[in-house]
Amino acid sequence: MYRLTVLYNQPTDPAAFDEYYANTHMPLAAKLPGLRSAAVSKGDTLDGSTPDVYQVSELYFDSKTDLVAALTSEQGQAVSADVANFATTGASMVFTEVTEVSL
Amino acid sequence: MYRLTVLYNQPTDPAAFDEYYANTHMPLAAKLPGLRSAAVSKGDTLDGSTPDVYQVSELYFDSKTDLVAALTSEQGQAVSADVANFATTGASMVFTEVTEVSL
Repeated sequence: MYRLTVLYNQPTDPAAFDEYYANTHMPLAAKLPGLRSAAVSKGDTLDGSTPDVYQVSELYFDSKTDLVAALTSEQGQAVSADVANFATTGASMVFTEVTEVSL
Repeated sequence: MYRLTVLYNQPTDPAAFDEYYANTHMPLAAKLPGLRSAAVSKGDTLDGSTPDVYQVSELYFDSKTDLVAALTSEQGQAVSADVANFATTGASMVFTEVTEVSL
């Protein structure tokens, strides 16, 4: 599986971020062509401090080819453009081919 | 599942990093008590440039309690101390309770 991970920085207004993400951005991203599965997780810390990473969103595709096709599609361009509407403190993207390790 | 994600910065000597990781660090980390599964993935880019994140390592535990127990165990302290032996350009850690999204 090929994955796009988006690490969102701590927002100034977490409640507004969550509201926009759940009701606008996620429904938009869910329609990306070729999207196989997704996970949305809140950043955490072990000492109770505020984490630098507020949210981690992971989008899984069958292949890098599928991901590129999704991001360059009309839907993909709308999803990318929408990020600026709520991720006002920034976000970083990490692309990986995911490989499970046998323990 | 509770996850520790380690994002390793691009090393100065990727071959040496890979060799040490595969033969020393991963075998050490694989013995962490309560570790349920793990994934090790290389960072990628869409334009062929060198990614800032060289490798993403994910360690999954049943709960945050289990992760804390693992990291504070003797084995966990050895794993943490070993990071400085190969991650000479730095790494960042992200803790998340992973939540799959229904599409």
